[in-house]
Amino acid sequence: MSQNTDTLFFSSDYMEGAHPAVLDALSRTNLVSTEGYGEDAYCRDAQRRILEACSLPDGEVRFLIGGTQTNQFVIDCLLPPCSGVLCPSSGHIAVHEAGAIEYCGHKTLPLPTVEGKISASSIRQYTNDARADANWEHMVMPGMVYISQPTEYGTLYSLEELEEISSVCREYGLPLFVDGARLAYALAAPENDVTLADLGRLCDVFYIGGTKCGLLFGEAVIFTRRGMVPRLTGQIKQHGALLAKGRLLGVQFQALFTDHLYEQIGETAIRCAARIREKLLAKGFELSVNSPTNQIFFAIDNSLLDPLSGKVSYGFMEKIDDHRSMIRFCTSWSTTEEKTDALLSVIDQMDTQR
Amino acid sequence: MSQNTDTLFFSSDYMEGAHPAVLDALSRTNLVSTEGYGEDAYCRDAQRRILEACSLPDGEVRFLIGGTQTNQFVIDCLLPPCSGVLCPSSGHIAVHEAGAIEYCGHKTLPLPTVEGKISASSIRQYTNDARADANWEHMVMPGMVYISQPTEYGTLYSLEELEEISSVCREYGLPLFVDGARLAYALAAPENDVTLADLGRLCDVFYIGGTKCGLLFGEAVIFTRRGMVPRLTGQIKQHGALLAKGRLLGVQFQALFTDHLYEQIGETAIRCAARIREKLLAKGFELSVNSPTNQIFFAIDNSLLDPLSGKVSYGFMEKIDDHRSMIRFCTSWSTTEEKTDALLSVIDQMDTQR
Amino acid sequence: MSQNTDTLFFSSDYMEGAHPAVLDALSRTNLVSTEGYGEDAYCRDAQRRILEACSLPDGEVRFLIGGTQTNQFVIDCLLPPCSGVLCPSSGHIAVHEAGAIEYCGHKTLPLPTVEGKISASSIRQYTNDARADANWEHMVMPGMVYISQPTEYGTLYSLEELEEISSVCREYGLPLFVDGARLAYALAAPENDVTLADLGRLCDVFYIGGTKCGLLFGEAVIFTRRGMVPRLTGQIKQHGALLAKGRLLGVQFQALFTDHLYEQIGETAIRCAARIREKLLAKGFELSVNSPTNQIFFAIDNSLLDPLSGKVSYGFMEKIDDHRSMIRFCTSWSTTEEKTDALLSVIDQMDTQR
Amino acid sequence: MSQNTDTLFFSSDYMEGAHPAVLDALSRTNLVSTEGYGEDAYCRDAQRRILEACSLPDGEVRFLIGGTQTNQFVIDCLLPPCSGVLCPSSGHIAVHEAGAIEYCGHKTLPLPTVEGKISASSIRQYTNDARADANWEHMVMPGMVYISQPTEYGTLYSLEELEEISSVCREYGLPLFVDGARLAYALAAPENDVTLADLGRLCDVFYIGGTKCGLLFGEAVIFTRRGMVPRLTGQIKQHGALLAKGRLLGVQFQALFTDHLYEQIGETAIRCAARIREKLLAKGFELSVNSPTNQIFFAIDNSLLDPLSGKVSYGFMEKIDDHRSMIRFCTSWSTTEEKTDALLSVIDQMDTQR
Repeated sequence: MSQNTDTLFFSSDYMEGAHPAVLDALSRTNLVSTEGYGEDAYCRDAQRRILEACSLPDGEVRFLIGGTQTNQFVIDCLLPPCSGVLCPSSGHIAVHEAGAIEYCGHKTLPLPTVEGKISASSIRQYTNDARADANWEHMVMPGMVYISQPTEYGTLYSLEELEEISSVCREYGLPLFVDGARLAYALAAPENDVTLADLGRLCDVFYIGGTKCGLLFGEAVIFTRRGMVPRLTGQIKQHGALLAKGRLLGVQFQALFTDHLYEQIGETAIRCAARIREKLLAKGFELSVNSPTNQIFFAIDNSLLDPLSGKVSYGFMEKIDDHRSMIRFCTSWSTTEEKTDALLSVIDQMDTQR
Repeated sequence: MSQNTDTLFFSSDYMEGAHPAVLDALSRTNLVSTEGYGEDAYCRDAQRRILEACSLPDGEVRFLIGGTQTNQFVIDCLLPPCSGVLCPSSGHIAVHEAGAIEYCGHKTLPLPTVEGKISASSIRQYTNDARADANWEHMVMPGMVYISQPTEYGTLYSLEELEEISSVCREYGLPLFVDGARLAYALAAPENDVTLADLGRLCDVFYIGGTKCGLLFGEAVIFTRRGMVPRLTGQIKQHGALLAKGRLLGVQFQALFTDHLYEQIGETAIRCAARIREKLLAKGFELSVNSPTNQIFFAIDNSLLDPLSGKVSYGFMEKIDDHRSMIRFCTSWSTTEEKTDALLSVIDQMDTQR
Repeated sequence: MSQNTDTLFFSSDYMEGAHPAVLDALSRTNLVSTEGYGEDAYCRDAQRRILEACSLPDGEVRFLIGGTQTNQFVIDCLLPPCSGVLCPSSGHIAVHEAGAIEYCGHKTLPLPTVEGKISASSIRQYTNDARADANWEHMVMPGMVYISQPTEYGTLYSLEELEEISSVCREYGLPLFVDGARLAYALAAPENDVTLADLGRLCDVFYIGGTKCGLLFGEAVIFTRRGMVPRLTGQIKQHGALLAKGRLLGVQFQALFTDHLYEQIGETAIRCAARIREKLLAKGFELSVNSPTNQIFFAIDNSLLDPLSGKVSYGFMEKIDDHRSMIRFCTSWSTTEEKTDALLSVIDQMDTQR
Repeated sequence: MSQNTDTLFFSSDYMEGAHPAVLDALSRTNLVSTEGYGEDAYCRDAQRRILEACSLPDGEVRFLIGGTQTNQFVIDCLLPPCSGVLCPSSGHIAVHEAGAIEYCGHKTLPLPTVEGKISASSIRQYTNDARADANWEHMVMPGMVYISQPTEYGTLYSLEELEEISSVCREYGLPLFVDGARLAYALAAPENDVTLADLGRLCDVFYIGGTKCGLLFGEAVIFTRRGMVPRLTGQIKQHGALLAKGRLLGVQFQALFTDHLYEQIGETAIRCAARIREKLLAKGFELSVNSPTNQIFFAIDNSLLDPLSGKVSYGFMEKIDDHRSMIRFCTSWSTTEEKTDALLSVIDQMDTQR
């Protein structure tokens, strides 16, 4: 079947299957018999490897299937009654999950952002104001904090910023949850100074995204302390999120955490993204966000959109004004230098003089 | 890693990965780029093949990930307000989904069963009684009907039984939903007289289970008429059930519906189950349920459980009395004659004289 | 406006307004200004009086509006994740609340009953079986116990029975919740040996029903220990159950707990119910339930229903067989001897020879 | 019991009981027997009167108990799947209902406001943008519109503004829901040009608030067409919002809609509010909002708050800056000229020279 073989796919980082090493692990283990529901040895080994990588001997790892499901599950399990989740106004949970958080009964409490990031001080101010409000009993109080690393705009929290956020969260008793759907692209970025161990030390819960970083699917949720969520397996089941053949997640994450694959899997994406950025700037495009990871946001004249879309699949993000839009190119572990060359060539040929 | 290689796994039908043809399809397409969220050509082709197999030109197919998720989603989308879902008291949704239906706000209304099956007359009687009740406004009314083919006890609705159930459902305006998590084992059973086209004609919604029938994971939900559920994609997303790399489901179901694989995939399981049943009877065991599919339930003296479990992984089902239990052997598409021989030999050596 | 002045109302115990002393208290305080939402001195005083009556110096009282709302709220606040509420199969929450418990995400786990009552041993057995089930992780576990005193059939738990239930609940860590919507009629029954202090000692939560026992509306929920429910006011608000003029509840309960009104308010109802029972038996009717409180259930030939309903408003309960039904007469604090005389006379004139 | 008799209560409009005519109606009918759950003749007559006042022969009226409950119920019944409710960012449902809308699974979609009001154009723009978004399938779409008349800041939509909003709602298929918790104070304001019949013509659902406008409690929800909500009684019950003695609501609303009481009940409040406003301006205070109804918002130096609160109970609204706050005085049907005189005298004596 023809799959638009002429189109260059740069619209997102889930356009292909799995990294060959991951697919190979699935193939090798395919006919081995194991227990179901994640009670197998592959899962146990993958959990062990992940906790080791995060320096979290007392943590607890569970594998879920996708990002929205993970966000919904973790937030639903951790939020206290009458509480909401503080998040960037551009956060995935606030905008692009079709109301999955509200569906579970919870309010998102959006905070203002700079390039997709919120600050410790905005968490502090919102919480102070809410707690001081004369009507607080009738209001949704902050109950936890959600951020993404990298953010939905590809930007990174620095270690200092994350430490400040963690510190204010602990001061106010707000669990900190970091969405790491694209975490491998943060770890591979030269600008990044936040390690897995830092996340393990500073968060209450975070996840290592597999879907966008080399797996067919799968997100590894790391609870930094055991026992944070009662009836953990039962609650996963109740949310429709318990995979019968749980070992598929274990096998994949085992492969991802073997031979340093996870540490390296984002490198090509970062390198190719840098080349694309450079080319865009050279052609006179304006970058909308100063993103050091695998997402490139830039302003483009609307008249160029149609010609471009015939050759490249890109992500349309938002209208800037009546004449210009912000669009996204996205690289991934599967992006090759050849494919990047092809994109650079398309960019080169764009008529930006109009 | 050692995976209990000495144990014979007959505890369920999701103990291995995928049928080789399915895994091969995933490998072949692994690095092809496609749109996400099931908007790709693989999904479209798989949907077309399935609708054709079900003789449902006007139907609509969506791929979800697992059985509990599918039951939860379909029931949540179809139940009217203040309504519950009539189901067998032994139905998966009533017993083994950790309250996933109630979690979405809905009551299960269990009906009495014979070998896991409910009857058209019990649906009629419950609904008549409920609607005639002087307090009906304060009660949960039947809003739809859920059954499984084969049932949780491996039994089959005959075409006549299914036609009667369908008929009473239509008379009372109750959508009929058939859980086909193990449908391939029904279709492969000689006793079965219900085809995919019959399901398409008699149900409102049903699903063709992939997880237990040859796929890594995946369930194909068939809405027999387009447009039954508003905001279908959005609702799947909101339930955390939208797979980013949706094409993984399309690729797998495409393989399952190529070269009659789905029609044949249950055959070995049925043949091996028949051999196991025969052996059990020959050894003097009593079958608890008269099941013609891939599940074998039988009574066993408790003193035999421990010796058995050292050699075979079986499903423990329930206590019969202080001395005996009902346990389950389960075959699947991956069961081989060799593995079955090994199990028969274990049964042969059991000391049933105690 | 004519209000069916010729009909004798014995259909339920919420057919009239409030006891005169309660209405008088509302009138006297009508134009006094107070804080809203139950933060006023009337509420505080009523709470103090109730805790004193229940010998619960460390308890916490909140006033809600109606019975279904109270059941829904308390159960939603107390049930742990993936847990259900054990209750009589005839319990109000299981049958007559339009799915209010499930609406909040929770499963009711009905137990078999004798005359509306469950036993300590059935709680023990269900919980043992559930916890021992090999699939317990995929099942809804018992999370609390709900009973009513008196039951929906007007029967009473003896002190011994309640102590046994309380004991098994504590042994298994299941909070015990007693619905006291008609509690005044239990307390006024000569057969009763359970006091308010016993309830305070044996339950975790219970409520003193006002709606059916002399108030316009209102239920006093007694948490036997402070702090059992986090964000209590906020959660009441979130459930739409926080009355703006909360003092209306305080004023009414203050009146009910002044001059021993609550202890006596059920007495006439009990006396009149006894007279009705005696007359029914004398006329050859069969009592369906051996109820010592204000509800009288009896079997009646269907041919007598129409003639009766022209004169008396009764509660229709259920079909016994093709010829007979079980119906209910219900007395209340507002029932008078004169009204009872009139009913006795109607019964006397019934043609029971057919 | 002493009830702060020295304090002047101007903090809200639910500080007292009911208008004497309403209380009198409750007293007169107290011992009449009626059917429960709103099936009585008082409710039917009150419903008839209300529909007549709204010129809605084909409408449907239901009585609920309080405002948050009503907002939660109506929105939960009317919102389609994956949809949110557009509302002012200062709307009661967005801020002061402890997450009651989200608790039922729905997102509030706040729009920018001017003095508590939103505009037709902001509804149009938000909906256009949302529907045009490339990712709309993953987003919560506008599903209905919620506004209050008067708003939470006491301001009024003009007839022209309401007609524009209604028009855009109909163009986009968004049901329009008007919260009339304080509607009587709108109707009594000289500036108002929106009648009950206008609301009936322009909205899909609205409610006539009783709690803040002369009743002990109660809100009359007017569905402008019958049959908009399936299982209406059942859904009210399921939300814990069905009053057993429903006739209490019918009796009260019957009194409110007798002898033009409802049309006049807000008049004193409006007159007294005007006097207070005049005095505040005369003393040099700045009104924060240009409100023509019974709420008066003004800026006050923080140093004056403590002295004031010793004499007057006011509503604290929000911090303006480090030195000043916005607070609220609120009049009601129960405010007298004498009480207003006393407040004016307190204002007069305030030391505003600091």
